[in-house]
Amino acid sequence: MKMLINVAETVVADALRGMAAAHPELTVDVENRVIVRRDAPVADKVGLVSGGGSGHEPLHGGFVGHGMLSAACPGEVFTSPVPDQMVRAAAAVDSGQGVLFIVKNYTGDVMNFDMAAELAEDEGVQVAKVLVNDDVAVTDSLYTAGRRGTGATLFVEKLAGAAAEEGMPLERVEAIARQVNESSRSFGVALSACSTPAKGSPTFDLPAGQLELGIGIHGEPGRERRPMMTSGEIAEFAVDAILDDMRPRNPVLLLVNGMGATPLLELYGFHGEVMRVLAARDVPVARILVGNYVTSLDMAGASVTLCEIDEELLRLWDAPVRTPALRWGM
Amino acid sequence: MKMLINVAETVVADALRGMAAAHPELTVDVENRVIVRRDAPVADKVGLVSGGGSGHEPLHGGFVGHGMLSAACPGEVFTSPVPDQMVRAAAAVDSGQGVLFIVKNYTGDVMNFDMAAELAEDEGVQVAKVLVNDDVAVTDSLYTAGRRGTGATLFVEKLAGAAAEEGMPLERVEAIARQVNESSRSFGVALSACSTPAKGSPTFDLPAGQLELGIGIHGEPGRERRPMMTSGEIAEFAVDAILDDMRPRNPVLLLVNGMGATPLLELYGFHGEVMRVLAARDVPVARILVGNYVTSLDMAGASVTLCEIDEELLRLWDAPVRTPALRWGM
Repeated sequence: MKMLINVAETVVADALRGMAAAHPELTVDVENRVIVRRDAPVADKVGLVSGGGSGHEPLHGGFVGHGMLSAACPGEVFTSPVPDQMVRAAAAVDSGQGVLFIVKNYTGDVMNFDMAAELAEDEGVQVAKVLVNDDVAVTDSLYTAGRRGTGATLFVEKLAGAAAEEGMPLERVEAIARQVNESSRSFGVALSACSTPAKGSPTFDLPAGQLELGIGIHGEPGRERRPMMTSGEIAEFAVDAILDDMRPRNPVLLLVNGMGATPLLELYGFHGEVMRVLAARDVPVARILVGNYVTSLDMAGASVTLCEIDEELLRLWDAPVRTPALRWGM
Repeated sequence: MKMLINVAETVVADALRGMAAAHPELTVDVENRVIVRRDAPVADKVGLVSGGGSGHEPLHGGFVGHGMLSAACPGEVFTSPVPDQMVRAAAAVDSGQGVLFIVKNYTGDVMNFDMAAELAEDEGVQVAKVLVNDDVAVTDSLYTAGRRGTGATLFVEKLAGAAAEEGMPLERVEAIARQVNESSRSFGVALSACSTPAKGSPTFDLPAGQLELGIGIHGEPGRERRPMMTSGEIAEFAVDAILDDMRPRNPVLLLVNGMGATPLLELYGFHGEVMRVLAARDVPVARILVGNYVTSLDMAGASVTLCEIDEELLRLWDAPVRTPALRWGM
């Protein structure tokens, strides 16, 4: 598998140097691997820190900025960042109002964010944590006890980020993040495997003519493999898998997310099918996002995430955001 | 090659239905294949119409909105739209101030936009045209006499769009579009071929371990094939190919564009290398865009576009824009 890289060992550092050059509104510490909004700490504002393995871009570094994350900690590809990164990030963004850690449910991330929380509190930073575990495909997985954290991470980061920007206190920002996660469900499919720079070849084997239903964002096994299905059939399977686990009575936010290598032309077509199925199931859609937001390197495929909202969450969704990957209202 | 589609025949219509569902700020005529900003025609504003084969998304439909295109006409995948689409688009966006057609230099597009211009003028719409031909890789190509139009299309659409939004008359908007094209150069590389839905398999053969330097956005042959190069070597080759053809004395806009399947992690790393080379060649960079903007379905690779600017073009670049794929300042 050919890649647009120098050598596998420097892929993350090289990308961070490129991010620094592209986004003067961010402070990128390449050596210590922390991406911070340049105006941090913002006075009287709760700080939001997330992070995880690289390879899911724009998550998380592309979501740092006004109205979303205060800082992001990228690990090696598909590998948790280390506690030292999170402690540095917390110190950089804490205004004295405390910091919320947003943690996708993978064993390494959970362990390292737990350790970082203790270390940061030792340094006098008040820390709260929220776990994102929205993926309905499987219980327990290759790197996870319980459900995996996937697309809902974007919703948690946007909505809690808007709450923090409004000046809400830490306990309220944490409660909103928790509500968003509990109100969100995701389901993903893969049409091809992805290749990590270190391995240089596909990380799993997906035979020609087959797709994997319920794939994880690192290529972890899903529910089952089947002969290739149409976009409409995949939309039905994904939406119904989600609706088996939640029954929205209020409008939802919808994320139709590309895994990386699926062309936008296909993703928009898939979105049309998802909307058709949601309409047939009487699920009202309040807001929509279609694009590559929580990716898996060069994997082909897509995921669907629903988040049931109330009026407050809708207001927080519409609030201004200015990050490299998500931007509106300013 | 597996694709997230229903059947090849409906890929474009399915995508347009999805775009309509995702973007209420656009009016999408699925049957006639015209995407128009919902508030068109905007009083006393010159209309901007572009279009071309599908498969390059977000180009052009993702660039319709305030401060950029008034309308876009998507053809079949890698196939020119037909004159009827352009005539409809011109009629929908003309406020009486005339319409500028922005045409990438491919034989089919040029012919059909020429025909559409005559037909629209018969219907009383004043039409000007600008040809985009920024690709320095080859003279003449598979579908082109002269140079191909690629990444500079984004710059032409953004800057002429801002000029039109400011209320400049047609001849001035046309002059700016022409200046932007003449001040822009691009060079692209492919690490893998792309697969069209109709063919269902790679449209050309790129052997393992080789890359194609100077690729076109439909997989047209470039300058040469070589054994795989590092990101840094590719950046040097691409930037030097551009600088052999232009010598910017003023700052440039820089687009580091992904071809579709190259992960953002790799693209940012490549961007860092492009910045390193530009600094070594004493080219000052005023503004930067890194992402997938002018794609070739699931092709892996990237392109570099430079546009030498003056103070007016910088002001137009910074002007507010609100489209599905490009958005700032509002």
